[in-house]
Amino acid sequence: MTAAELKSDNPSFVLHGVENVKFEDRPIPEIHSDQVLVQISKTGICGSDVHYLQHGKIGSFVLKEPMCLGHESSGIVVKLGPDVKSDFGLEVGSRVALEPGMCCRTCESCKKGQYELCPHMTFAATPPYIYGTLCRYYVLPADLVHRIPDSVSLEDGAMMEPLSVGVHSVHTLGQVQSDQVVIVFGAGPVGLLCMAVAKALGARRVIAVDIQKERLDFAKQYAATDVFLPGPKDATEDLEVYTSRIADEIRSTLNIPERDKGAVDLAIEASGAPTCVQIGLAILKPAGTYVQVGMGAKMTLPVPLFHIITKQLKVIGSFRYGAGDYPLAISLVERGLVDLKPLVTQRYEFDDAKEAFEATKLGKGKDGKGVIKCIINAPK
Amino acid sequence: MTAAELKSDNPSFVLHGVENVKFEDRPIPEIHSDQVLVQISKTGICGSDVHYLQHGKIGSFVLKEPMCLGHESSGIVVKLGPDVKSDFGLEVGSRVALEPGMCCRTCESCKKGQYELCPHMTFAATPPYIYGTLCRYYVLPADLVHRIPDSVSLEDGAMMEPLSVGVHSVHTLGQVQSDQVVIVFGAGPVGLLCMAVAKALGARRVIAVDIQKERLDFAKQYAATDVFLPGPKDATEDLEVYTSRIADEIRSTLNIPERDKGAVDLAIEASGAPTCVQIGLAILKPAGTYVQVGMGAKMTLPVPLFHIITKQLKVIGSFRYGAGDYPLAISLVERGLVDLKPLVTQRYEFDDAKEAFEATKLGKGKDGKGVIKCIINAPK
Amino acid sequence: MTAAELKSDNPSFVLHGVENVKFEDRPIPEIHSDQVLVQISKTGICGSDVHYLQHGKIGSFVLKEPMCLGHESSGIVVKLGPDVKSDFGLEVGSRVALEPGMCCRTCESCKKGQYELCPHMTFAATPPYIYGTLCRYYVLPADLVHRIPDSVSLEDGAMMEPLSVGVHSVHTLGQVQSDQVVIVFGAGPVGLLCMAVAKALGARRVIAVDIQKERLDFAKQYAATDVFLPGPKDATEDLEVYTSRIADEIRSTLNIPERDKGAVDLAIEASGAPTCVQIGLAILKPAGTYVQVGMGAKMTLPVPLFHIITKQLKVIGSFRYGAGDYPLAISLVERGLVDLKPLVTQRYEFDDAKEAFEATKLGKGKDGKGVIKCIINAPK
Amino acid sequence: MTAAELKSDNPSFVLHGVENVKFEDRPIPEIHSDQVLVQISKTGICGSDVHYLQHGKIGSFVLKEPMCLGHESSGIVVKLGPDVKSDFGLEVGSRVALEPGMCCRTCESCKKGQYELCPHMTFAATPPYIYGTLCRYYVLPADLVHRIPDSVSLEDGAMMEPLSVGVHSVHTLGQVQSDQVVIVFGAGPVGLLCMAVAKALGARRVIAVDIQKERLDFAKQYAATDVFLPGPKDATEDLEVYTSRIADEIRSTLNIPERDKGAVDLAIEASGAPTCVQIGLAILKPAGTYVQVGMGAKMTLPVPLFHIITKQLKVIGSFRYGAGDYPLAISLVERGLVDLKPLVTQRYEFDDAKEAFEATKLGKGKDGKGVIKCIINAPK
Repeated sequence: MTAAELKSDNPSFVLHGVENVKFEDRPIPEIHSDQVLVQISKTGICGSDVHYLQHGKIGSFVLKEPMCLGHESSGIVVKLGPDVKSDFGLEVGSRVALEPGMCCRTCESCKKGQYELCPHMTFAATPPYIYGTLCRYYVLPADLVHRIPDSVSLEDGAMMEPLSVGVHSVHTLGQVQSDQVVIVFGAGPVGLLCMAVAKALGARRVIAVDIQKERLDFAKQYAATDVFLPGPKDATEDLEVYTSRIADEIRSTLNIPERDKGAVDLAIEASGAPTCVQIGLAILKPAGTYVQVGMGAKMTLPVPLFHIITKQLKVIGSFRYGAGDYPLAISLVERGLVDLKPLVTQRYEFDDAKEAFEATKLGKGKDGKGVIKCIINAPK
Repeated sequence: MTAAELKSDNPSFVLHGVENVKFEDRPIPEIHSDQVLVQISKTGICGSDVHYLQHGKIGSFVLKEPMCLGHESSGIVVKLGPDVKSDFGLEVGSRVALEPGMCCRTCESCKKGQYELCPHMTFAATPPYIYGTLCRYYVLPADLVHRIPDSVSLEDGAMMEPLSVGVHSVHTLGQVQSDQVVIVFGAGPVGLLCMAVAKALGARRVIAVDIQKERLDFAKQYAATDVFLPGPKDATEDLEVYTSRIADEIRSTLNIPERDKGAVDLAIEASGAPTCVQIGLAILKPAGTYVQVGMGAKMTLPVPLFHIITKQLKVIGSFRYGAGDYPLAISLVERGLVDLKPLVTQRYEFDDAKEAFEATKLGKGKDGKGVIKCIINAPK
Repeated sequence: MTAAELKSDNPSFVLHGVENVKFEDRPIPEIHSDQVLVQISKTGICGSDVHYLQHGKIGSFVLKEPMCLGHESSGIVVKLGPDVKSDFGLEVGSRVALEPGMCCRTCESCKKGQYELCPHMTFAATPPYIYGTLCRYYVLPADLVHRIPDSVSLEDGAMMEPLSVGVHSVHTLGQVQSDQVVIVFGAGPVGLLCMAVAKALGARRVIAVDIQKERLDFAKQYAATDVFLPGPKDATEDLEVYTSRIADEIRSTLNIPERDKGAVDLAIEASGAPTCVQIGLAILKPAGTYVQVGMGAKMTLPVPLFHIITKQLKVIGSFRYGAGDYPLAISLVERGLVDLKPLVTQRYEFDDAKEAFEATKLGKGKDGKGVIKCIINAPK
Repeated sequence: MTAAELKSDNPSFVLHGVENVKFEDRPIPEIHSDQVLVQISKTGICGSDVHYLQHGKIGSFVLKEPMCLGHESSGIVVKLGPDVKSDFGLEVGSRVALEPGMCCRTCESCKKGQYELCPHMTFAATPPYIYGTLCRYYVLPADLVHRIPDSVSLEDGAMMEPLSVGVHSVHTLGQVQSDQVVIVFGAGPVGLLCMAVAKALGARRVIAVDIQKERLDFAKQYAATDVFLPGPKDATEDLEVYTSRIADEIRSTLNIPERDKGAVDLAIEASGAPTCVQIGLAILKPAGTYVQVGMGAKMTLPVPLFHIITKQLKVIGSFRYGAGDYPLAISLVERGLVDLKPLVTQRYEFDDAKEAFEATKLGKGKDGKGVIKCIINAPK
């Protein structure tokens, strides 16, 4: 059955198990008094959506009931609960970006301003929550429904979710400052958005490191000031020697000192690759900051504690996004400091959602073009 | 030749090569106009001193010329340069603790308040600097010569050096707060001093973890509120499973929640052991802080990035000590908040310096008692 | 009509207008699903309660409907809503301290961890909210109902409210550190609690300044290490000259340097008096922190910007309390680091509530003793 | 005697007393081993130079010996001491901006990274130091001699001094963030440079407030996104009522909310005027930051503590500049984010230095143009 054949007012793209996804009728959700009903416009596909499709789980989040996929979305407000405060500036017809995680608001993390760490978080398309945004109607509390200016497209609105990951990593945690030298490992969607944020916030240099030349070529055109493709490990080298050599090569090739002005102030690791973790810590200047946002296949990786100790580095893990991240993401796009358009490489109608997943999985669309981000139009 | 047989006014304990150390005549050093000449009273022996004796190097610091050993010292001011500012409150006869590292004062690290990261640091008993404090006279700039109150003994004065390492790790970097739960891995001298600092600064609980029962017994009597001795790894367990199990056992045995009030806010890793690194990151609460001060045999260790990311942990390396650390160390002892006396387990005359090194190496004195810290009296 | 004569299950002490307060029948409030019903045990009387009684308003908060007074309370949980999370550790019979301000949880201030600044705050005994805690039953969301340990009395529980003001000022905003020198202006309840917090958090010296000798005598016995009573202004002196002279007198009398170790790191202004504002800014060391918690009669006071600029001071306003303040307050009392008992100088039965207000207003009880804090027992 | 008639190699513009300034022969200064001799190129005239000329003192800094004026300068390195580290990248011929304050490097402020607060500071053209930069040769330690890129003019190099004041106020202390709304009071040189820095660092809006329309016109063309000229105080209004009204007018005219997104995050007070202090504190959002950099005629001004308390504002004094400020200033100009050229409105030869002071004093040049900054060429 295709989405078009459904009778429901809320056609949904629902995961039933590994590689088992169906278009389904679902009821239009009820809203609480402080909530908003949004008609979805655009949804981006994320690696985690594909991972659920392929494996039925991510870590301890295991699919137990059929779950609607999708969490990177924009839409139009169609209904507001009676207690929605006017502060949010929402009305029927407002164009909005959706922040897909609902926290409990009363735990220590929520009250101390780090709601991304709430243990009671209910997140779109993340078990045990069975709702996602690949459907027509979605419900959220009003404070998670962020208005976007008229000058920002609904496609850009959907991209605010991954951009907020970049804002969280580079700004909120990495605390990038004007004139800093930033190195980003991994030129996939998250890495590219981290580069864009670093540049938008005034980094002097944004160095992209990846092992695929085409991705570096894209990064260079997009937001990187410099790119570097590490050569292979010699058979005789161990990981430490290899990565230390690469760090030296980056420094000499790109004319980067080891410390003081012009040295690497901030490293963003968005690949999860063991070599990148090592290179990142080796190349940072003393007292530098390293943010780990990429989650690799393995829980545990070899890490050069030696560099962390002797250079007194600060290593911070980055998880999703929190207070202030969506507003800054929207502002960066509104003010033209981040351009999201080049990142949307493929577009699909809702009926073709499976193709979008397939393209994201393969990293290549039917058009033969490399995939950065696939966007799916919601059912009309 | 023994120290007693030397003719010099400045008998010194000098390392010439691996396991080759001699008492030697050295001239009384000249002082610059802003420097102070100190007659050494007491010197503690540190693992790094022993490491130079056994290996002739630590990492990239390689002995190339004969070098006087010793860097944990107290003494009496015997001469002041004409430009020593009165601000320092020094005069001939002042009892002082010596801070043994001289920074350049003009690099970015020095000017931004992190002089411990100065690349031009000249540190006692660290090649290529050939001076150490196991001698009669030592020279330092006035700001590194810290007066100690009359109520603080010269032996305590020598212990300010390792105590400053604890202050740096727990206070300056770890930013311990009153009511926090702190876990310290490794109950050697640095670990014990970290526990003492955590307790002195108001930690609600100070949990010591070590694999030697006697060390935990000492820790419990000294500054730990709780101790835990991890059982062995099962043959079938990998490192992740094992350390995750131990973290759970610590939590259940000591009644520690995973998050919010009562959970582990701060982990201090002072052992350098791979299991402890893993347990420390596994047991921390979300948004917790982890400080790595212990340097193990290996530069690179397996680290659970998964915990760092999903709990958004902050991991900080701790290197030596910096601005404000010596003054706080002295104050904690002066106010009776840290008791250094129990940590000095063996005392030696200068002529018996080799015995002190031997005891430190073996971890056991001639008296059969376990060594925490050996103190050597300076030549009179 | 006395409280004892009321038929209601929820006798309440209700303000109807200036100096017009009555015992009244009120219904037992309903609770929402995430709320808790508390039977009040003890309520402290605060200057703001008295101010409402005398003036019917504080600033822009104007009484428009009858309002139950009281907001410093402890009690016993008697009913829990079905959605109260187990995280809070509450059950029927739990002994609790009440945090009397309910924020909206969705505005920028709430989400960034500063809920005390929420514009939608609903605060006990503060118009337009008509509920207060001088009654038998009070309703709060579960996260504002803080369990107190068995070792902490219900009277201490009521005192957690003003203690949290001290925690907020000295710890959360003032960020007091061990070994610091702290000066507190005003030895009323808030000033005394600020002194207690500073001492509990490791201040080296806590200097109390007040213009009443008896209050300083109390402060000295309670938590101050030093006290100072400023002499009167000479007729010829202007405010700057006078306060500068007093700052010098404090320094010379108490042997306090102008800068560096031993100088005043933190000033807490809890009097609202113009002279104290001036002295506080004059006596601070460069880069010192000044926290204004006392609100005087006038909105605007003369402030020596000269000191703020040339010493690069940080001046912070302190408003109520926020995330983490109640838990730390309770911990400080539980661990014996703050003793609240000496501050409760008068105790009243509910029927005698008016006497408690009278004593607080006069600053002297029927017993002739100076009032620090009056506690009223709830109706049984 | 004119400068041209002097025989010396180091003609200097020397203040002997109130309104008594002479061209004089002075010897070429000797350099210490870690110092650099610079041949001055350009010097800007600052209000403080004029103040010394008119009054012979600023606050407690009183002229006692003849003192060379000038402290905003650029030049060319002509000689380096033998111990100047290669880290600084200096050589004979290097084009440099001079940071005119030498700190002691060993006091608590210096070691904690706040050298601007050093009590032993020796600052150009500030008694009792008798040297200034209005001469041919000037000596500084190497770390205070900042290389400027070839793309940056020597005139811009001289302007790095006031620009560093802006960097210190807006970035280092005010910690401006991208997307913030910043209001700057006073559109003189410092205020304009604060606006430029705020804009360069990503402020969403930069609102200039001044009482002279021409200055606002300039600000609007230069770096302000919005300007506001407050109307006069009504005879019946007191200061509070007036400034509160103006704050409301600014909000309504410029469509600025009282809190949350779009509200004023940061206020920079660069006028020293009592009304501006009041308006700045009235208009800030809760938890906003206020930086006082303008020093008015009076030490003490009326300040609305009420706003500081109830909005929990952070008020910080800004004094000169410190670690990292010059490097960021240079980078902002190099990267084209700050344009200094429009601010130099008059240029003078060394022989005409008195005219430059006269123009600065009058605020108008011989050309009839308003003065922002006068630059004097050094003697060739």
